[in-house]
Amino acid sequence: MTSPGALMAAEIAEQPEALERLLREGRDDCAAARTAIERQRPRFAVLAARGTSDHAALYAKYLVEVRLGLPAGLASASSMTVYGARPDMRDVLFVAVSQSGESPDLVEATQVARAGGALTVAVTNSPDSPLTRAAEWPVLVHAGPERAVAATKTYTNELLALHQLLVGGEAAAVPDKASATLALGERAYAAATRYRFTDRIVTTGRGFSYPTAREAALKLMETSYLAAQAFSGADLLHGPLAMLGPDVPVLAVVPPGRAGAALAPVLDRLRTAGADVLRVGPADGLAVSSEGLDESLAPILEILPLQQLAWRLALDRGGDPDRPRGLAKVTETW
Amino acid sequence: MTSPGALMAAEIAEQPEALERLLREGRDDCAAARTAIERQRPRFAVLAARGTSDHAALYAKYLVEVRLGLPAGLASASSMTVYGARPDMRDVLFVAVSQSGESPDLVEATQVARAGGALTVAVTNSPDSPLTRAAEWPVLVHAGPERAVAATKTYTNELLALHQLLVGGEAAAVPDKASATLALGERAYAAATRYRFTDRIVTTGRGFSYPTAREAALKLMETSYLAAQAFSGADLLHGPLAMLGPDVPVLAVVPPGRAGAALAPVLDRLRTAGADVLRVGPADGLAVSSEGLDESLAPILEILPLQQLAWRLALDRGGDPDRPRGLAKVTETW
Repeated sequence: MTSPGALMAAEIAEQPEALERLLREGRDDCAAARTAIERQRPRFAVLAARGTSDHAALYAKYLVEVRLGLPAGLASASSMTVYGARPDMRDVLFVAVSQSGESPDLVEATQVARAGGALTVAVTNSPDSPLTRAAEWPVLVHAGPERAVAATKTYTNELLALHQLLVGGEAAAVPDKASATLALGERAYAAATRYRFTDRIVTTGRGFSYPTAREAALKLMETSYLAAQAFSGADLLHGPLAMLGPDVPVLAVVPPGRAGAALAPVLDRLRTAGADVLRVGPADGLAVSSEGLDESLAPILEILPLQQLAWRLALDRGGDPDRPRGLAKVTETW
Repeated sequence: MTSPGALMAAEIAEQPEALERLLREGRDDCAAARTAIERQRPRFAVLAARGTSDHAALYAKYLVEVRLGLPAGLASASSMTVYGARPDMRDVLFVAVSQSGESPDLVEATQVARAGGALTVAVTNSPDSPLTRAAEWPVLVHAGPERAVAATKTYTNELLALHQLLVGGEAAAVPDKASATLALGERAYAAATRYRFTDRIVTTGRGFSYPTAREAALKLMETSYLAAQAFSGADLLHGPLAMLGPDVPVLAVVPPGRAGAALAPVLDRLRTAGADVLRVGPADGLAVSSEGLDESLAPILEILPLQQLAWRLALDRGGDPDRPRGLAKVTETW
């Protein structure tokens, strides 16, 4: 047994090194799969994942739409596994994302997609898993073994692997920027103090940063048992805004660039509602060192102070973020 | 001014009549659009919506995948409105869903989809709106004017209109089943008593019933300001399960058929976690009169007792479900 939170702390700290390793050792996998995509020229993309990896899949959906100019969707695995749908998947790029590569529903969905004619890619941290074998193009994320139940380094490596797969290049500065961002951890630990006694929290973001809001909420749910709710900035205004007031803390991911600018009207409405807003971004609030990077890479950095916040808050509340109650590292669903 | 909740109560009660009207008066619109779909044979579907209508869009995604055998996705409007993506939408069926047909981001996304070659359908309750004009095939849901801010009858009519558009037939018994389900309202009001002092609640469902869980959570957020979190049964097991225990009430939508059967392992895990579970389904808990209907139609009925529950709870807590704080009937987002 290790002390509470020791595994998660070590894995948070390892991220710059893990990202560096992926850039070095994952290049060939990504390039091979990317060449296959360029050759086959799919016309639609379907992304399939669960839990933390589902937020990486959502990030990939934005990459496909914005950088590849293709319509895309997140798979509802149950259409295939519960209702037996066998969709026509010709001209579809199907990307499954999973740390373990073990979950039976993802494996089945990938098999169905491949049998239906899709170009299938499996992005996993497991070189020999059922999912890796089910897909035509395996892409390893090279995060190294992850032992804490709450995923951290596999998430950021999944994001970078998806960026390398779908866009390529541009990313050499990411590991150093990750180190610089993690070095500001004291700010995240200080923020944890403010949330010591809240039972609920809301996270929000737009575009590439919406997955960051989703993943931050999941980390807070699984390590600190908060009722953490994530909304895209636009969806927040369509109903959920009613429940916000001075008693509900809000974490708003406000990167430089268009996603941050698009959040401005949402921040105005939150101010009117009297909400307590902490910004996650380049300068104010929880700082993120993303200067000079393309905005599509910012999510790899934005999640870092939020992981630190979740870790610290769990310890402050007497929990063990390495071993959340009721969870196992590999979740099998059908 | 009407008394608190009077508008929402009247609109909940009107649903059987509104559904009947749609079956009668909406037939031609739906048939014309369905014929266009059958003629053009799209290969991928994209559904676009916000708020309550986004849950109708999610329902449509399952219909497309299971009944039409096509891959499908929910639009991320911001890819087009924030990042300026202009995707290749040939062979795509694009369906926008909106009560008002006013939101600029949906109108722009529909224009971009149409310019990109998609077959565009607008499902709205507004015969003369920017969205109706933006799409090639308008489908009116014939719910009549909706005055309460919390949408009820426009949601169930959107579900039925989408079923008529994408599947057709099968639905003649729905209005009578809706009457029978609403007549059991005392059970929903009794359930509201139990949740009088909770600040949080979790809803869950799978497949066609996952949108029901999502919409129930939104109703509870916008009328009673609860931290209501909706998860598909599979996603619930990937992390959020950790925050569940005896103090967090759970509403589980458990219809007859495959979606309900697929929820069984989730209910087992909830039992182990000691969660307080109220089932929404045909017999136990909040009863739904869906006997004899295809399981794809059950969501139109399942939401009814949950609307009654949200309405009653808001009144019990001293709120006015017709006028949630901070919200207007038409939300414009970009």
